Amino acid sequence: MREIGVGLLGLGNVGAGVVRLLEENAKAIAARLGATLVVKAIAVRDLEKNRLAEVRSDILTTDAMSVVQRDDVDIVCELIGGETLSRELVLRAIEKGKHVVTANKALLAVHGEELYAAAQQAGVDVYFEAAVCGGIPVIRALREGLASDRIESFMGIVNGTSNYITSAMAKGDRDFSEVLQEAQDAGYAEADPSLDVGGGDAAHKLAILAMVSFSTAIDPSQIHVEGIEGLTAIDYKMAKEFGYVIKALAIARQHEEGLELRVHPALVPQGWLLADVPDCKNALYVQSYALGASMYYGAGAGMMPTAMSVVSDLIEVGRNLGAGVTGQSSARQHSEQSPLKIRPMEDLKSRYYLRFAVEDRPGVLGQLTTVLGKHGVSISELLQTGERAENAPAQVIALSHLAREGHVQAALREMATEGITLAPATLLRIAK
Amino acid sequence: MREIGVGLLGLGNVGAGVVRLLEENAKAIAARLGATLVVKAIAVRDLEKNRLAEVRSDILTTDAMSVVQRDDVDIVCELIGGETLSRELVLRAIEKGKHVVTANKALLAVHGEELYAAAQQAGVDVYFEAAVCGGIPVIRALREGLASDRIESFMGIVNGTSNYITSAMAKGDRDFSEVLQEAQDAGYAEADPSLDVGGGDAAHKLAILAMVSFSTAIDPSQIHVEGIEGLTAIDYKMAKEFGYVIKALAIARQHEEGLELRVHPALVPQGWLLADVPDCKNALYVQSYALGASMYYGAGAGMMPTAMSVVSDLIEVGRNLGAGVTGQSSARQHSEQSPLKIRPMEDLKSRYYLRFAVEDRPGVLGQLTTVLGKHGVSISELLQTGERAENAPAQVIALSHLAREGHVQAALREMATEGITLAPATLLRIAK
Repeated sequence: MREIGVGLLGLGNVGAGVVRLLEENAKAIAARLGATLVVKAIAVRDLEKNRLAEVRSDILTTDAMSVVQRDDVDIVCELIGGETLSRELVLRAIEKGKHVVTANKALLAVHGEELYAAAQQAGVDVYFEAAVCGGIPVIRALREGLASDRIESFMGIVNGTSNYITSAMAKGDRDFSEVLQEAQDAGYAEADPSLDVGGGDAAHKLAILAMVSFSTAIDPSQIHVEGIEGLTAIDYKMAKEFGYVIKALAIARQHEEGLELRVHPALVPQGWLLADVPDCKNALYVQSYALGASMYYGAGAGMMPTAMSVVSDLIEVGRNLGAGVTGQSSARQHSEQSPLKIRPMEDLKSRYYLRFAVEDRPGVLGQLTTVLGKHGVSISELLQTGERAENAPAQVIALSHLAREGHVQAALREMATEGITLAPATLLRIAK
Repeated sequence: MREIGVGLLGLGNVGAGVVRLLEENAKAIAARLGATLVVKAIAVRDLEKNRLAEVRSDILTTDAMSVVQRDDVDIVCELIGGETLSRELVLRAIEKGKHVVTANKALLAVHGEELYAAAQQAGVDVYFEAAVCGGIPVIRALREGLASDRIESFMGIVNGTSNYITSAMAKGDRDFSEVLQEAQDAGYAEADPSLDVGGGDAAHKLAILAMVSFSTAIDPSQIHVEGIEGLTAIDYKMAKEFGYVIKALAIARQHEEGLELRVHPALVPQGWLLADVPDCKNALYVQSYALGASMYYGAGAGMMPTAMSVVSDLIEVGRNLGAGVTGQSSARQHSEQSPLKIRPMEDLKSRYYLRFAVEDRPGVLGQLTTVLGKHGVSISELLQTGERAENAPAQVIALSHLAREGHVQAALREMATEGITLAPATLLRIAK
């Protein structure tokens, strides 16, 4: 049977999963591909390290560039992460006419343009299913499953750590920091969790998903990003009282004036499928012209789920190789179109959950609603919470009707200036 | 730009949707495909009928075979349904070297073997994303997204009419027939709903999904099928009390001794994603070795969602055509493997919801549990319902631990023979 040579860059969790899956499912993969995928060389940092997969020591090397340059390597599989060395290696691979499969969302979000252009010029494939939502085949769904459709918007739970924390917070009455500690102890959050809980990882994934959905280049630094670090038990409790759960979402929506792109925690109505996404699972809820709503759910991270996406990409690139074509389906298809404009966050129209810390005295609710009304923000529900510590300020929750973000922010600023609120207000958007 | 000729068989709902989508999204489709999809001829039954899409009258014909034979038709798109004429037309198309896109689940479930063999021999594509779960790209997910994985089981809501009815029954206290009437009035159920509510349609889809998931030929007549016609308000009410909702499911699971394949209503735990699938939506919940659980959700029927899948298939076949290859990905890949055995239903191990109509007298519960115990069926919860009409038998609900279907059925037969139960017991399986 024909052999397709694979060069592996990195043998961490995902790399070991790839090696294991290639071995364990070798027969089925060969049947599907009409060829065998053979790992010819693996670049590692440390030759002596213990591995999660058994590999022959003679295919290990610390010289990553040598793997990329080997004649018997047809597909380079980049699993080292980061944006610098990985960029160099991938560009060199493309230059040498190798196809590339990568799980590196940061690389794609930041240097995607450059890589796609190089791949197009060299006539090679760059596949990246594993870069977003781990094992869930969302890139295939958006690009091929919905190829004939027009995607209008999507809303996703794309960071497993954040979903683990928001799910755990929904169960009890604990604040963010306490649950983060638990997540770290359980291995669901890294020692430095800032990229996950701060929203940066989600923004990278949002950039890639938006690029695929709307066929446009995206500058991830233009995405509005808020993390979940400020979430408190009281907000979960109040959200529940109003019929919502709080989830960390990545949202994109196409408007005539440009793309709305944002990452932040949001109130999701109970009974929505996204409200029920548990633990560190991911899900992408898509709205498109012909299909309407669709959702894709599963493991967004982890050794075997991510490896599964990588190997499925290897199979598809292998098929293209066998057929002597490149996957037009996976290359970017917007080269002749100028990038879509990103709409400023202040133009967002949303419903809002607002929590104010105020003095417990007559007239204060009137002052709040007066300032909101002055800025065109109208309130659908208003509630003063019962519980609070002695001498602590009163907590007032307001849910707004649809309002413009800029107006809401202006109202909050005025309240602070006027001394109506005793601490910065909590602002959460309500998903719809 | 290069033209790809499409011959349309049928211009009903879906056919009209295909025509509209090809027009409305023409620019985006051409950009994705690098060619244009041009409808060259459309076979209809009645030339004078009003259409849901505007088409030039000179491309309409009542001679379907002539469409299949045209030299300028590269892809035949079969949307007429049924198993006889459609089979002839598709076989002739394949023989003439045309690629085929079809939404016809009955045709594939019953004559799939013959069609795939013919397509393989002729070196043409047969794509059928629209045949299962309408617009949800489940075939692509199973076949390409999870190409490197090993699917262990799946559980799906694959019939929209049945889900509409079960969802409506879950809201109120109405029996099947009343809700069916409402579904018919609302256009969600056909005048003759038997194929939908009887489970036959779901069995066709199950056969296709199992064929794709387990790479094996499936004889749909071997699938255990129960419809939802017997569902009553009391079962919904009791299920809710125990923490479940009732949904019509199609289930497949691979065992060493063979495939478990079944279509029937089942109790689904509240909080599961499948429990929240509303209205006439579909969803497929898949369990696979590497990825673990994943779910695919969306519109399982309807003009535009189904047309979307058909046109996405046309784009993919068009890409193959442009590349001069056939989609190895879509052809069947099990030709050298003998069909997997179907496991007999009596070997099923499940938890059961059992409702017995019994005389309201001391000792009757003891008799019930004794017979169950004798057959090795152990009970986890037992409940006598409060409400019942004067002189009506008492209703006793038992939830079992894991038990063998054959044992449960034997116990029910013995109870009937012994006169312990006054009417046939209601048996529902609990999904897990």
